[in-house]
Amino acid sequence: MKTSQNKIYIFDYSPETLVEKEVKTIEECIAFKESPSVTWVNIDRVPPVDDLERLRAVFSIHPVVVDDILNVNQRPKIEILDDYIYVVLKMLTLAENNKKVESEQVSIVIAKDFVLTFQQDIEGDTFASVRDRIRNKTNKIRGMGTDYLAYKLIDSVVDNYFNVLEAFSDRLEKIEHQLINNPNNNTLQEMYNLKREVLNLRRSVWPLREVVVALERDDTPLVKDNTRIYLRDVYDHVIQIIDTIETYREMLSGMVDIYLSSVSNKMNAVMKVLTIIATIFMPLTFLAGVYGMNFKHMPELNWVWGYPLVWLIMVTVAIIMLVFFKRKKWL
Amino acid sequence: MKTSQNKIYIFDYSPETLVEKEVKTIEECIAFKESPSVTWVNIDRVPPVDDLERLRAVFSIHPVVVDDILNVNQRPKIEILDDYIYVVLKMLTLAENNKKVESEQVSIVIAKDFVLTFQQDIEGDTFASVRDRIRNKTNKIRGMGTDYLAYKLIDSVVDNYFNVLEAFSDRLEKIEHQLINNPNNNTLQEMYNLKREVLNLRRSVWPLREVVVALERDDTPLVKDNTRIYLRDVYDHVIQIIDTIETYREMLSGMVDIYLSSVSNKMNAVMKVLTIIATIFMPLTFLAGVYGMNFKHMPELNWVWGYPLVWLIMVTVAIIMLVFFKRKKWL
Amino acid sequence: MKTSQNKIYIFDYSPETLVEKEVKTIEECIAFKESPSVTWVNIDRVPPVDDLERLRAVFSIHPVVVDDILNVNQRPKIEILDDYIYVVLKMLTLAENNKKVESEQVSIVIAKDFVLTFQQDIEGDTFASVRDRIRNKTNKIRGMGTDYLAYKLIDSVVDNYFNVLEAFSDRLEKIEHQLINNPNNNTLQEMYNLKREVLNLRRSVWPLREVVVALERDDTPLVKDNTRIYLRDVYDHVIQIIDTIETYREMLSGMVDIYLSSVSNKMNAVMKVLTIIATIFMPLTFLAGVYGMNFKHMPELNWVWGYPLVWLIMVTVAIIMLVFFKRKKWL
Amino acid sequence: MKTSQNKIYIFDYSPETLVEKEVKTIEECIAFKESPSVTWVNIDRVPPVDDLERLRAVFSIHPVVVDDILNVNQRPKIEILDDYIYVVLKMLTLAENNKKVESEQVSIVIAKDFVLTFQQDIEGDTFASVRDRIRNKTNKIRGMGTDYLAYKLIDSVVDNYFNVLEAFSDRLEKIEHQLINNPNNNTLQEMYNLKREVLNLRRSVWPLREVVVALERDDTPLVKDNTRIYLRDVYDHVIQIIDTIETYREMLSGMVDIYLSSVSNKMNAVMKVLTIIATIFMPLTFLAGVYGMNFKHMPELNWVWGYPLVWLIMVTVAIIMLVFFKRKKWL
Amino acid sequence: MKTSQNKIYIFDYSPETLVEKEVKTIEECIAFKESPSVTWVNIDRVPPVDDLERLRAVFSIHPVVVDDILNVNQRPKIEILDDYIYVVLKMLTLAENNKKVESEQVSIVIAKDFVLTFQQDIEGDTFASVRDRIRNKTNKIRGMGTDYLAYKLIDSVVDNYFNVLEAFSDRLEKIEHQLINNPNNNTLQEMYNLKREVLNLRRSVWPLREVVVALERDDTPLVKDNTRIYLRDVYDHVIQIIDTIETYREMLSGMVDIYLSSVSNKMNAVMKVLTIIATIFMPLTFLAGVYGMNFKHMPELNWVWGYPLVWLIMVTVAIIMLVFFKRKKWL
Repeated sequence: MKTSQNKIYIFDYSPETLVEKEVKTIEECIAFKESPSVTWVNIDRVPPVDDLERLRAVFSIHPVVVDDILNVNQRPKIEILDDYIYVVLKMLTLAENNKKVESEQVSIVIAKDFVLTFQQDIEGDTFASVRDRIRNKTNKIRGMGTDYLAYKLIDSVVDNYFNVLEAFSDRLEKIEHQLINNPNNNTLQEMYNLKREVLNLRRSVWPLREVVVALERDDTPLVKDNTRIYLRDVYDHVIQIIDTIETYREMLSGMVDIYLSSVSNKMNAVMKVLTIIATIFMPLTFLAGVYGMNFKHMPELNWVWGYPLVWLIMVTVAIIMLVFFKRKKWL
Repeated sequence: MKTSQNKIYIFDYSPETLVEKEVKTIEECIAFKESPSVTWVNIDRVPPVDDLERLRAVFSIHPVVVDDILNVNQRPKIEILDDYIYVVLKMLTLAENNKKVESEQVSIVIAKDFVLTFQQDIEGDTFASVRDRIRNKTNKIRGMGTDYLAYKLIDSVVDNYFNVLEAFSDRLEKIEHQLINNPNNNTLQEMYNLKREVLNLRRSVWPLREVVVALERDDTPLVKDNTRIYLRDVYDHVIQIIDTIETYREMLSGMVDIYLSSVSNKMNAVMKVLTIIATIFMPLTFLAGVYGMNFKHMPELNWVWGYPLVWLIMVTVAIIMLVFFKRKKWL
Repeated sequence: MKTSQNKIYIFDYSPETLVEKEVKTIEECIAFKESPSVTWVNIDRVPPVDDLERLRAVFSIHPVVVDDILNVNQRPKIEILDDYIYVVLKMLTLAENNKKVESEQVSIVIAKDFVLTFQQDIEGDTFASVRDRIRNKTNKIRGMGTDYLAYKLIDSVVDNYFNVLEAFSDRLEKIEHQLINNPNNNTLQEMYNLKREVLNLRRSVWPLREVVVALERDDTPLVKDNTRIYLRDVYDHVIQIIDTIETYREMLSGMVDIYLSSVSNKMNAVMKVLTIIATIFMPLTFLAGVYGMNFKHMPELNWVWGYPLVWLIMVTVAIIMLVFFKRKKWL
Repeated sequence: MKTSQNKIYIFDYSPETLVEKEVKTIEECIAFKESPSVTWVNIDRVPPVDDLERLRAVFSIHPVVVDDILNVNQRPKIEILDDYIYVVLKMLTLAENNKKVESEQVSIVIAKDFVLTFQQDIEGDTFASVRDRIRNKTNKIRGMGTDYLAYKLIDSVVDNYFNVLEAFSDRLEKIEHQLINNPNNNTLQEMYNLKREVLNLRRSVWPLREVVVALERDDTPLVKDNTRIYLRDVYDHVIQIIDTIETYREMLSGMVDIYLSSVSNKMNAVMKVLTIIATIFMPLTFLAGVYGMNFKHMPELNWVWGYPLVWLIMVTVAIIMLVFFKRKKWL
Repeated sequence: MKTSQNKIYIFDYSPETLVEKEVKTIEECIAFKESPSVTWVNIDRVPPVDDLERLRAVFSIHPVVVDDILNVNQRPKIEILDDYIYVVLKMLTLAENNKKVESEQVSIVIAKDFVLTFQQDIEGDTFASVRDRIRNKTNKIRGMGTDYLAYKLIDSVVDNYFNVLEAFSDRLEKIEHQLINNPNNNTLQEMYNLKREVLNLRRSVWPLREVVVALERDDTPLVKDNTRIYLRDVYDHVIQIIDTIETYREMLSGMVDIYLSSVSNKMNAVMKVLTIIATIFMPLTFLAGVYGMNFKHMPELNWVWGYPLVWLIMVTVAIIMLVFFKRKKWL
């Protein structure tokens, strides 16, 4: 985990006022914290332990939560405490021309007057839309509290999952297409890779369900009643994502069946060619062999029509075989 | 999503009165809304955002619900609010000679005196039967409230799922028939396609279960007690559909086994033909080869009965092989 | 659904009295309904809608329940209302020498003083034993209420499931036997058919579980406390049936593995024969071919011992090959 | 079910006293029943119906329970009544050198002052250890009530399941060993048989879980608080057995994969031998065939070095082929 | 179970004081037990039964718990009693260069003033970090009670599971790599072994979930409120481990598909080589055979260009076949 070069970015807003600036040290946040306006402190790259310690002191965060912020391999979870709520999410972003999914842990601390967010890495996040809304004075978010801000942040993460799902859907269709037209060992490998990524997405989304439910249902005063309907909406989205993931998994397992049977069918086709060739030429070669024998007393060899007759027999045998295969629908 | 050319169709009825007409603008609905009679406003194609905004104002609907109406890729869900209930359904219709299932999102807003329904597309819906009932003065629906109307609308959607299931059942039987008589790679493809559509249906029906349960169990004053028994009936239908879907899935997975084994059996048959031919003609060809050798000292070649004797040996070998195959039940 | 020719059969009993007779019209039941004695009206073939309407009026049944009675494709379910309980069951009977399972819907309406039962078809039911008990003056049933009668009716249906299970068990054993001795494509087909019927049975029994639980647990005054222990007994039977069904399903899926592997093993056997024959005769035929060449200068051809020597070589090659196969355990 | 020759064996004990004797008739038990000491009546082979009827009268047992005792094909279950608790268990014993598992139904009736146990068969049970404890005056059991006795009886049955599991584990290891060293069709058969027995064990143990939970949690006065910790211990054992069973099932299904792939691998090996032989000798035989042709004008035939040259070509071809196979890692 | 040579190691600490020493007999612990400071008695190798009996008397532990401590084949479980909590865990350690996982049972008894831990074996445990913390005077643990100590002990066990998972992940990647580059029968064997160990880990972790939940949720006074947040953290870790295990299982089952298909693909490749060779040389050998016949009247034999013509035909046939295979993409 790279902890150096962390960037601290502050939004402090109320319906009328808006302060937006980047600061260097944690201490600079204290002033904003005291104000009754909503303060959002976004920290890119988790800060060095010392900074975190000061942060802990400034915002009076429990040491277990600080440990969790530092540990970037966590499962999405929620911890509802008296003074604040701690939420861990996985922010997924598409990279390399939508072919790779990158996962980044986001920690959100929601208190009465401030929201802290910790991101793992600097490049790209899904919070841009939230920032734009805050900058827009007429936007609803300006008149709402920290719970609505937190909802918007979570919502932006969840919405991005749909983009990831769409990229998966594209790959799924590509595999389906390949499966019908030209299945090869690579196809299976791609199915396996996609399945793996789908499982990863699932691990990010499944626990989120409980996180959002807890946020909506818990009677913490930090979440106001008129925010709950928005959280239910996020919940519905999460369920829809889970649903789609399960469908993808079922489709992938159905595709494996198609793939395996196409391999068998290919072998069948190969075997048929071999069998047809062998079944036609073996009896003919045998016949030729018979009249290649050197017995002194082989009356047929002396017949004038012997040779044409053998050809006639051979052609007849070949035709019989071909009719046989035609009947068996091998041709 | 096409939002233009939306059509607004109004039913306003009480036991004695009935007004039915198409209007052009949302504003024309206001008058009906005020009346104590039941008002059903059906909007084909979701209206432009501006119209929706006016609608929102007229019927005082929460912005989140308006967002949900606009988003046509939702999962069936229910949102029970103080003044109204919002329900999202998937209306499935059979197209192309029952071979394709088309899915359309239907949003229903149930308030004390009015019901709003939003359909995605103009052509065809399952509400025709409900309209006929309303037009019939003696029908029970005329004396009931918005909850009964909503029940009837949902019931018409659920009833149509049975038609879809029947179409699936036909396809399933067709595949079964094909599987026994002439399984080919296409059969598996069709199984996969059917499985996919069954999964889609499942995604439309599963969440419906919770929707209907919530509608029946929640103690909202919008649903009267004597309507609940009807909702329980819808619930039973939903469960029956889910049951049938699960059975179809199990049957499809059983069919995959049959298909894969039939592919193996086919290969077995091909291999047997090859083996029988090779096993009979290889020893014979070898024998012919032996007496085709040009050694100076091969006493057999000079025997008078050498040639017939070789034939005798060959026929004997062939018969022994055939008996062997007969015993192995390959013939 | 054939609704004509329905037969109405009445039992009206108390500890001392018993009236048993067949009537023609619904109206004739009214007299019995009024009496405090237990009245059981059994209607074979669901009556025409008009009759049902009268029935509805006479026994004051909810229209939804009447709809359910008419719809014979229902899932087992229970509807506990204030005045009566409505139960739907699937009665299964074995036909065609135990090879086919026929399913028939049975609707039971349990009120304080009467029980109505509706059967789909005339021939055969599982209620014979209940009738015999009623006719026997000393039998416990004569002193009990409608709840005990309903218990006995449901119990007779459930008990018959055990017969169906036994028939399945026989077929399962037959398939197992076939699988070991002579597996063929038909075996798989039979497994699939059995699986299908097991799934059907499952669909009849699973929901019954909830039906019986509801009947036992609900605090409706229609079910007396001393009947509940009997219902728990029925519940135990239902669970046992479900258990057995699940075991059958697992066994069937295990059998598919055995079948598929036996197909592969057969192919293995075929391939081995082919390989042994080809591996022995190909080198020999080649050797014979070499000495069938017509080069002028082939010293071996003129050796006196050339021919026997070639035979020696050939036999040696064949023996080496056989030893090789013996070692590989292919022989 | 053999009901004749049943044996009735009585233990009647208190901390100071112990009476142990075999009696002939049910009536002889009455005296013991009246005493405040703990009375354990063990009846081998379910008695004839008449005896049971007297038993029922003596110990005032509900007729449904008597029916359950007679029906030896039951699922483990518990019935908690006011005056006594009725428990059904499956006692499993290993027979035929640990190769077969025999199942026997045990019914236990636990009342305030007496415990009745019914076994299906005479030979062998798991209660010997309990008898020894009772005979030992210093043993804790002598100072405890019927609930502790019942716990000990159930515990002895559950403990024996571990022996059965161990026998299964041995067979599993044997199959694993066979799978690696010499898989044959018999191996699969044995996997199937084991799977079947594991499923049987599962059916005996799964419902036991609920039985023990009910016994521990129900607030019946028949189970004293200080016995509950022992029942929790039995519960933990049952869960552990279920756990192990599920693991065995997963391992068995993994083994099927290994078996099927080993069959495929064997076929691969066979095919390779065939292909190598055919690929080497077919071109050679062709070459020999060419120079066996009888054209008048074949200049090669008259060359002095023709014959050795052909041999040279043949050996070269063979070597090229062998190198090709070596590269493909088929050799 | 080796019970001899057990080692008793005591930590007795308060914020200011720390006593750490090894004792020989159980009795030496009594003094520490009486003090209000936190006492941790760690016993390596479960002591002989006599010692345990004395221990039981000294610490007043229930006989069932003592039995559980002696039985080292238990499932993780928790028993919350009035005076103490009894927890069973599985401590896993990596051995043999991370290739083997060794499982050891750890029993923890948590009372108000003391914690007893029992380990199965002497070598290596995961408690070293806890010991270091206790020795460090400034560490938080010194100021906390037995519940925090117990948390730290459980946490150290759970944290080590992550190491085991990492070792599994390495093996999984190795198998994946092998699967792509050179799948052989050994690969499947390794998959099976890994699956088996994953199942074992699962059996150790699954029940732990309930243990930690019980510890956190139960309102025993032995666990203080400010320790619960730490236990929730352990719970999150356990869930994360379970999650990862399930993902591994799914990945392993996906790998089996890839393996089986790679076996089939290999066979396909073998078959193609055979078919190509046979299909090219069989017709050629037949042609050569024809002109090797000894008929007196075969005009072609006397043509001057007969021999070259035959070669021409042969080459043409071979080229046609090769083009055919090229088209079929077998080359």
